[in-house]
Amino acid sequence: MPSDPMSAGNSVPEGLSTAISLLKQRFGERLVTNEDVRRQHANTLTWIEGEPPDAVVLAGSTQEVTEVVGVAARFGVPIIPFGAGTSLEGHVNAPRGGICLDLSRMDNVLRLNAEDLDCTVEAGLPRGRLNTYLRDTGLFFPVDPGTEEATIGGMASTRASGTTTVRYGTMRENVISLKAVLADGRVIETGGRARKSAAGYDLTHLLVGSEGTLGIITEVTLRLHGVPECIIAAVAGFPTLASACDTTMAAIAMGLGLARIELLDPLVIGAVNKHAGLTLDPLPTLFLEFHGTPAAAREQVATFEEIARSEGATSFSSAVDEAERKRLWKARHDALWTVREAWPGRTVLVTDVCVPVSRLAECIAETEIDIAASGLTAPIVGHVGDGNFHALALHRPGDAEELAKVLAFAERLATRAIAMEGTCTGEHGIGQGKKRLLQIERGEAVSTMASIKSALDPMGILNPGKVFDRP
Amino acid sequence: MPSDPMSAGNSVPEGLSTAISLLKQRFGERLVTNEDVRRQHANTLTWIEGEPPDAVVLAGSTQEVTEVVGVAARFGVPIIPFGAGTSLEGHVNAPRGGICLDLSRMDNVLRLNAEDLDCTVEAGLPRGRLNTYLRDTGLFFPVDPGTEEATIGGMASTRASGTTTVRYGTMRENVISLKAVLADGRVIETGGRARKSAAGYDLTHLLVGSEGTLGIITEVTLRLHGVPECIIAAVAGFPTLASACDTTMAAIAMGLGLARIELLDPLVIGAVNKHAGLTLDPLPTLFLEFHGTPAAAREQVATFEEIARSEGATSFSSAVDEAERKRLWKARHDALWTVREAWPGRTVLVTDVCVPVSRLAECIAETEIDIAASGLTAPIVGHVGDGNFHALALHRPGDAEELAKVLAFAERLATRAIAMEGTCTGEHGIGQGKKRLLQIERGEAVSTMASIKSALDPMGILNPGKVFDRP
Repeated sequence: MPSDPMSAGNSVPEGLSTAISLLKQRFGERLVTNEDVRRQHANTLTWIEGEPPDAVVLAGSTQEVTEVVGVAARFGVPIIPFGAGTSLEGHVNAPRGGICLDLSRMDNVLRLNAEDLDCTVEAGLPRGRLNTYLRDTGLFFPVDPGTEEATIGGMASTRASGTTTVRYGTMRENVISLKAVLADGRVIETGGRARKSAAGYDLTHLLVGSEGTLGIITEVTLRLHGVPECIIAAVAGFPTLASACDTTMAAIAMGLGLARIELLDPLVIGAVNKHAGLTLDPLPTLFLEFHGTPAAAREQVATFEEIARSEGATSFSSAVDEAERKRLWKARHDALWTVREAWPGRTVLVTDVCVPVSRLAECIAETEIDIAASGLTAPIVGHVGDGNFHALALHRPGDAEELAKVLAFAERLATRAIAMEGTCTGEHGIGQGKKRLLQIERGEAVSTMASIKSALDPMGILNPGKVFDRP
Repeated sequence: MPSDPMSAGNSVPEGLSTAISLLKQRFGERLVTNEDVRRQHANTLTWIEGEPPDAVVLAGSTQEVTEVVGVAARFGVPIIPFGAGTSLEGHVNAPRGGICLDLSRMDNVLRLNAEDLDCTVEAGLPRGRLNTYLRDTGLFFPVDPGTEEATIGGMASTRASGTTTVRYGTMRENVISLKAVLADGRVIETGGRARKSAAGYDLTHLLVGSEGTLGIITEVTLRLHGVPECIIAAVAGFPTLASACDTTMAAIAMGLGLARIELLDPLVIGAVNKHAGLTLDPLPTLFLEFHGTPAAAREQVATFEEIARSEGATSFSSAVDEAERKRLWKARHDALWTVREAWPGRTVLVTDVCVPVSRLAECIAETEIDIAASGLTAPIVGHVGDGNFHALALHRPGDAEELAKVLAFAERLATRAIAMEGTCTGEHGIGQGKKRLLQIERGEAVSTMASIKSALDPMGILNPGKVFDRP
């Protein structure tokens, strides 16, 4: 349990209480110790219990972040960076208490370089607002985890991805460089704006996905993409999950230029029909999108339909207008909430394994058998073009037995994916929830990660208890 | 100067001599101390003087690499990994003596996963041989630094790129994961074969571009690409370098799908005409390539021609058959050797700055003025779609004054690129030659790199004297 300055006074270590006082002097009302605010900042959205910080600082600039880190370092107090709090693996929890560094006020677009297809933004900018900002430029930022609220800094920290990754990549491919504050208060810039560089170690990619444990990302330079001249959406229904997966594998193997290819199983289709007022057949279904010139996009659609039909697709519709297309993708993005709503009183553990696409059908098939054998309800949706899928394992909050069953399922699923040369997490990260799985997946390499952590944050003040436990 | 066991016996430190004896016992004839072989392994191809190792080991497996590293670690002896020795910045030099670990015998394709568009190869495999191996699969590996002999391990170590990077990316985008031996003999695998992963720190990208200073890469899993259905090459001549650059900028800004866009200045065109028997007008010229379906490729060519004409192109020819196309690209790849040949008795310092594409015209224009003002001869070629260009600064070997002039020019050029938010090295790496420039470019971040180096290689045995000097 975190120390809690709001409860019995003597539970607060002296260093922490001094640190908070100093920050209060410096930040005034932007240093908050109100219990509601602290609890909001530890809302994990998942089975992982909230562990609120002792205080929340609303930082407004890189300079202010260095000041907070400086005070924290002086007193050995943990710092937990916070964007929108939409992560799923307990990333914003404060298991050792400490200061939550809320970056949501750092939400400016600092610079747009339209000619170079890049922009520099502050870490706290939500991805949805970035795209609103870009609306009239002919450019967009493609990476789209479930919520529009996810901040660019948080997305960089967790190496986020989404439905367009099959074409545009994850945060790994779309962060050009970044500015970060390290544990010793140093501010580093990991690169410039050149499209490539061979200048020394790739600190950009080291920080992307490091979950706030190596440095606090304050600015990000992002790669942007031209809004395609033509966008065609399509929906394909299949008799089995296997035939939907086989279609995906064939399309990927031939290098077909898909912009989105998302699988929804019949349970999800049922929930989505109800929630979004759609009338899709309750079948394993692929939601698709093709980007390009009109000729190229139409060519891709035709090739895809041919593959799908040959794999047994029972329906294929690409006559989707823009309003309908937006409704489909909103329904897909809302799938997690839709499923929660369809099973009231249940909560969801969201797995996110990713396997080589050639193993996808096999991995999903074995997972379906596992779900049935375990007596679980776990609808499946997936970014199948990347070999990445989610089982939304339902369970009753507070029911320890059900939770244990769901966690055991998640571990079997991760182990299965790892055995297929995949990963326990395609996009959600390790956080608190997958530390054991990371160990299974990467073995010796985890101790290398820990060596790097110790070198850059010897006191362990940056987001402690995430990714791995200190050696 | 390196210690040299072949010269005065008492110059060999006791630990080194014991290490070499132990390795001799273990590797027999594959441990070579012959002077010619040692010198070959320090052939830097550039102005940087060769510093031969004390011995060369021809390793045949990851296991053998761990054994060599084990012995080296025990006696504190430097290890210098070696692929084909084609790097340009003294990467394979042995400034502190030690053991050169030649990986060229580790040249197997371990696994091809055609369905997943990936393969796993040993580090010593030359890129040309990989593409020969893939010839009948419909797949290819696109990254193409100047020589076919460059090994995949060496290319990963230096984050290499080439003419196709504008479409397919550098080694950064094309290495999925790798196996490496660390300084303490640990063998790590940095990932599986999934197309994406959020599992812990990105050790893949930390090792890519680390120039053998953090670990010895022994196996690499690579992303492959489908051979495009249609390839169209084109050649465009321009009245000025500026109009060629402006054309490039416009094409990149509109997101046109170029597979290759290479600039050759009139001096290079003259040399290439002579060497390769071409008959191009001695103008600033773009060599181009477009990949796609026939319709898409033709569409791109037409759009590009329109841009080029509007920027003043005086010629544009896309009626290039396959033989002619191959001759063009061979001529481009041979440009460095062609220039050497055209100016007999001179050697070349090859710069490789990279700037945001929007700054390219300005950077090249200022560089041309600088070349003229310095009284240098420095033909320019460039991967201009990436904002990356080479000035091939000619000078007489052994002429210290000329070398100083050329080095001062290279530093001004790098400083200019850095001031434009670019980098001192787009693709050649830091090695011994650009340590000062890395410091200018990345400042505080270099000390972060050094902390990581110290954490992973506390004795400093892995490729010492490269990237930075130890703090």
